Amino acid sequence: MGETYGDLRHLAKVRDCANALVGLDVHALNEMYARVAATIGAPPAAHGGGPSDEQTDAAARRKPTGDATKETTSAEGATNEKPAGATTKEKTVDRVFSPFEVACLDIRGKAAGVPVSDLLGGRVRDAVPYSAYLFYKWAGHPGEEPDRFGAALDEAGIVRQAKLLIDEYGFQSIKLKGGVYPPDQEISAIRALHEAFPGVPLRLDPNAAWTVQTSIRVGRELDGALQYLEDPTPGIEGMGEVAAAVPMPLATNMCVVAPEHFPPAMAARSIGVLLLDHHYWGGLVRSSHVAAMCDAFGLSMSMHSNSHLGISLAAMTHLAAATPNLTFACDTHTPWQDGQDVVAPGALRFENGAVPVPTAPGLGVELDRDALAVMNEQYEKCGIRKRDDTSYMRRFDPSFTAKRPRW
Amino acid sequence: MGETYGDLRHLAKVRDCANALVGLDVHALNEMYARVAATIGAPPAAHGGGPSDEQTDAAARRKPTGDATKETTSAEGATNEKPAGATTKEKTVDRVFSPFEVACLDIRGKAAGVPVSDLLGGRVRDAVPYSAYLFYKWAGHPGEEPDRFGAALDEAGIVRQAKLLIDEYGFQSIKLKGGVYPPDQEISAIRALHEAFPGVPLRLDPNAAWTVQTSIRVGRELDGALQYLEDPTPGIEGMGEVAAAVPMPLATNMCVVAPEHFPPAMAARSIGVLLLDHHYWGGLVRSSHVAAMCDAFGLSMSMHSNSHLGISLAAMTHLAAATPNLTFACDTHTPWQDGQDVVAPGALRFENGAVPVPTAPGLGVELDRDALAVMNEQYEKCGIRKRDDTSYMRRFDPSFTAKRPRW
Repeated sequence: MGETYGDLRHLAKVRDCANALVGLDVHALNEMYARVAATIGAPPAAHGGGPSDEQTDAAARRKPTGDATKETTSAEGATNEKPAGATTKEKTVDRVFSPFEVACLDIRGKAAGVPVSDLLGGRVRDAVPYSAYLFYKWAGHPGEEPDRFGAALDEAGIVRQAKLLIDEYGFQSIKLKGGVYPPDQEISAIRALHEAFPGVPLRLDPNAAWTVQTSIRVGRELDGALQYLEDPTPGIEGMGEVAAAVPMPLATNMCVVAPEHFPPAMAARSIGVLLLDHHYWGGLVRSSHVAAMCDAFGLSMSMHSNSHLGISLAAMTHLAAATPNLTFACDTHTPWQDGQDVVAPGALRFENGAVPVPTAPGLGVELDRDALAVMNEQYEKCGIRKRDDTSYMRRFDPSFTAKRPRW
Repeated sequence: MGETYGDLRHLAKVRDCANALVGLDVHALNEMYARVAATIGAPPAAHGGGPSDEQTDAAARRKPTGDATKETTSAEGATNEKPAGATTKEKTVDRVFSPFEVACLDIRGKAAGVPVSDLLGGRVRDAVPYSAYLFYKWAGHPGEEPDRFGAALDEAGIVRQAKLLIDEYGFQSIKLKGGVYPPDQEISAIRALHEAFPGVPLRLDPNAAWTVQTSIRVGRELDGALQYLEDPTPGIEGMGEVAAAVPMPLATNMCVVAPEHFPPAMAARSIGVLLLDHHYWGGLVRSSHVAAMCDAFGLSMSMHSNSHLGISLAAMTHLAAATPNLTFACDTHTPWQDGQDVVAPGALRFENGAVPVPTAPGLGVELDRDALAVMNEQYEKCGIRKRDDTSYMRRFDPSFTAKRPRW
């Protein structure tokens, strides 16, 4: 089993590639990647010819963009539409390849009678810590019933949400998705969390909503309150300027999202923490390569989460368990599924904010086909085939523009 | 099966570590690495604590030395003796861990019924090209009978040696180990090879015997004649100066021999080609991490060879076959074994200078216990327990000093 993004454009590519992979052995990951690349139309991964040709090729293939994903990670179409998306085809290859790779590791684990973590070097921790992922939100979608999480539109609401998630899951780290309100309000929210949960590591992620100057001001004001500050501002260069001027490390899942972003980001000293995400780093084995690169360059690691279900939670848990230098609690959207999942209950659970690493063969989870049918029906009915936050926002505020940096 | 260096000091560490690994599962490579590190006394690989602590740890663990191995790769004791060897313990961990890791992959491949290349992502080429590795040499060891390769003390001897190796193995690339005679003589040798084998890629490796100035002069004089120039001068900084001034890429197995050398070497633009060697890069999986890092930084790849037998030739072949961006012919010492090996004949052969990738499970080679007994007896009799080129040279030239750079 593998789990991937629900966008229609992405799924069309996944289906095209599936046809190109029929008949391959589950071990043939290099060949599988090459066929996905060929189907997507990306330049071939292995280069031939003499050294100067190769290096020219490599340089040409590796034009860093300095800005990539984040709220567009589920909508790779959205990344395609950006003018900076010069390397998008390769990023697309990694995204399309990922669910196949995870499925192959699941099969190999089941065939060998070992968990996927064993195929990645073996687990170095028996449970993987996740963090409480807080969002500013209305009590419910406008016009619908409030959900059980209630409103979180100010400090009090954010602290209440954190309490609920921590009570239910036992999380021992907290991440706030920011970039929603003017920076001073979000500074207040972090201070309120710091006061309500003394000693609990806190993170703030404004999704690149701030200018360099604003980022530096916020970073300095939050000295001592944040474990790390995630993507305050867009781009490798801007992040480098902020990193040099604030007391805490900067984390990213926006400015370093492909191997070719490493050279410029390391030169600019843009980040101290990389958030891994096997969905767009080309699967679990390629993610472990990224982890090795982070180790070589002295970067700490955590894990990014977009929305995901249990198949991916299992994959994330195996990967994090087998990655010695992934020492920060990972992000997860699990609480926001509110109990729904496509995997059979029992294999995955949270204990003190951590998911015990499944020890059953493969991913260690099984598909619940009835639950899958229910969720598929929801998908068919909801009508959403492409992530489009801007149109959604305009339903309530017609003047809304997707602007980065906003402050 | 795994194969490693024969030095007594190294073997003592391997034996210590073997005791620490008893009972581990063959998949538990992370735990195995941690136990080897603990036994050697290296700092732990995974770091705990907060971000600032971690980054301090990482920085402390990662002090680049800019100079490391090469002719001391088989004698890690020799590296220990160097003042620059601040990270030697970690390098030792990688060297001691490697044969265990290769053996575990051999077992896993045999258990799953797949070749080791399949455990590394699957082969992308059916045969791995190697190069003819030429050495300046006397007709035989002084006082002994000439060997069948004869003398190679000038251009004519070097060309004769190349012809012999190419006739027997079909090699399609040539590497000359230099740093033996004054640079102009070695320039003449490369020119003679260039004339005798037009179109065949040539490499010259003077083992860091030259100053920066000499390296630049030689590099410029050999414009158009070399595929790459390997380790002309010691250190990341010196290599960077040379790389900026010569027309061909520089290759190394001396100035980048551990992950912590990547950051300074990438900053200094010291190299264009990395020579992988799983014996000191911590085994096959860690070598594939290094390959991914080279891909991210636009480096080309080849493979370093120290002396080795068939177990390692099989491991090298599986690794190179499953590494898409390892596109240059690999180095090998196979011809210099002169037919002796510890693996049963038939599994490995050279066809047009390339070794067909074994398709039998695991490494695809089997131990020949009689041959092993014969070679073990040779080892016991020869009395060499530590590589010591300097003392050997002084038997014939009492004034010899191991000086780098020499010219």
